[in-house]
Amino acid sequence: MDLAERLLQGDKRAAARLISMAENHDPEAVSILKTLYQRTGKAHVIGITGPPGAGKSTLTDKLAKAIRAQGKTVGIIAVDPTSPFTGGSILGDRVRMNDLSTDPGVFIRSMGTRGHLGGLSKATQAAVKVLDIYGVDYIFIETVGVGQSEVDIAKNADTTLMVMVPGLGDDIQAIKAGIMEIGDVFAINKADRDGAKRTATEIEMMLDFNKTDWRPPVQMVIAVDNKGVEELLGHIMDHMAHMKETGKLEKKRILNSKLEIIDLIQENLMRIILDKSGKEDLINNLATDVAVRKADPYTAAETVLKEIK
Amino acid sequence: MDLAERLLQGDKRAAARLISMAENHDPEAVSILKTLYQRTGKAHVIGITGPPGAGKSTLTDKLAKAIRAQGKTVGIIAVDPTSPFTGGSILGDRVRMNDLSTDPGVFIRSMGTRGHLGGLSKATQAAVKVLDIYGVDYIFIETVGVGQSEVDIAKNADTTLMVMVPGLGDDIQAIKAGIMEIGDVFAINKADRDGAKRTATEIEMMLDFNKTDWRPPVQMVIAVDNKGVEELLGHIMDHMAHMKETGKLEKKRILNSKLEIIDLIQENLMRIILDKSGKEDLINNLATDVAVRKADPYTAAETVLKEIK
Repeated sequence: MDLAERLLQGDKRAAARLISMAENHDPEAVSILKTLYQRTGKAHVIGITGPPGAGKSTLTDKLAKAIRAQGKTVGIIAVDPTSPFTGGSILGDRVRMNDLSTDPGVFIRSMGTRGHLGGLSKATQAAVKVLDIYGVDYIFIETVGVGQSEVDIAKNADTTLMVMVPGLGDDIQAIKAGIMEIGDVFAINKADRDGAKRTATEIEMMLDFNKTDWRPPVQMVIAVDNKGVEELLGHIMDHMAHMKETGKLEKKRILNSKLEIIDLIQENLMRIILDKSGKEDLINNLATDVAVRKADPYTAAETVLKEIK
Repeated sequence: MDLAERLLQGDKRAAARLISMAENHDPEAVSILKTLYQRTGKAHVIGITGPPGAGKSTLTDKLAKAIRAQGKTVGIIAVDPTSPFTGGSILGDRVRMNDLSTDPGVFIRSMGTRGHLGGLSKATQAAVKVLDIYGVDYIFIETVGVGQSEVDIAKNADTTLMVMVPGLGDDIQAIKAGIMEIGDVFAINKADRDGAKRTATEIEMMLDFNKTDWRPPVQMVIAVDNKGVEELLGHIMDHMAHMKETGKLEKKRILNSKLEIIDLIQENLMRIILDKSGKEDLINNLATDVAVRKADPYTAAETVLKEIK
């Protein structure tokens, strides 16, 4: 039986294998995903982002358990751009050594960069497709960082959950400024800590400027004690219902598809440039000239572009 | 007198104006930077990264003061990918309202994204060039997040300072895993807090695996009390001396130039694709097909590529 068939029959190892192939840029993975693409789009994809130390992993695990208690299945993709490792070596083994990993209704996968430029976003999107075909009801994409790439990855979901935590100091100002357009649902984790109420109030104040017809709920949670988790899951499901009712889900998925197509075009173009014999040498020589200020980078880029056309 | 001449004569407002032009993709900015590019390469560029709440802004300010005390000048570029604002509206005004902003030997600038895909890295690189031409001795690039983009920005410097802080919990495991190859110098800020020593020990243990001829120093600091800041600056200068002596500086600058050229090629290609009449419509139509699963994104990207060639 081939990989595609095994995946369709719910073979967990086939799913894991296909994700690895996508990470390794194996053309066979693209070919399988092309064939099975029409089987995607059923899972509710939830992006989870927030600063390090917010307790995102713990909260994700508790949400997964709450979903399992309802008899639904869940996939967790832990995206760690700072990790050179993949396949669960960091987050997977150290943090996730718990009862979830032995539950057949839960699929957990960590993804690192392996030094690929921009490859993480593409591999993550492929992993979402694989789990969607595999058949889980919910897919969590959990990011470790809170930077641009992580926000982009989290936004590429149906619902984005922003996990905040008291005690971020001045940096919360900067994070808050970008929050309004990112989070569909907010969680204040470690809500028993000093300053939790103040953090919630500050976020509510920022959200007061939000003029759309979805007011993001702000839920206090204590993930380690499993407090507020079910309510949070309720908000996440409410958001999806709202997205479906208002036709926003379709619009968001069209936008996400557009961004994915553009990403793929860029990546393909770059591969064409670097593969053309002599082009990488040309770029290397120009880089040396630029480094010693014999040339400038703008003219160097134009030179390469002229060569391609 | 034109902008280029004013910049060469050390006109602060000319520098600010040119950075704004670069942010707004004004072709005139590229044209000026092409002409003056050979004047760059003199400043020591220091990338500062680390998780939110680590106190990077405060530490950067103290480092800037230590540099000023030695009679040298400094530029600070605060990169905030989550901020839709630019020109100092968030970090610049709220956090940086201190004596540094009135010092003529200090140039401070905040940079946000304004929603441009990947534009921040390019605008930041342009700002570094402008400040280098303007003539500051040191340039700090301070990032707010700790994600892939921020790490890429910080790495695009001569020296990368990684600011850590006690109390990050489990997330430090994930951060640490990516640390070895990123940080040239480490600071443990808020070193009077519980767990500071443990954090330092954990980092030292990770660094023990480092087999290069530069062992990144780990410096305890308390930025608010100005403790350990001079020692930290000493380590930063030592790193630069090491880079120069070993020829690594030249190699690193060649690599950075290569990455910058590739970025510029990608951006130019994307602009060519989106500008071609009809191509954006084609992408929009394909995105709709992909969203409703009538087409898959991989084939969609190939379709656009075929149209271009």
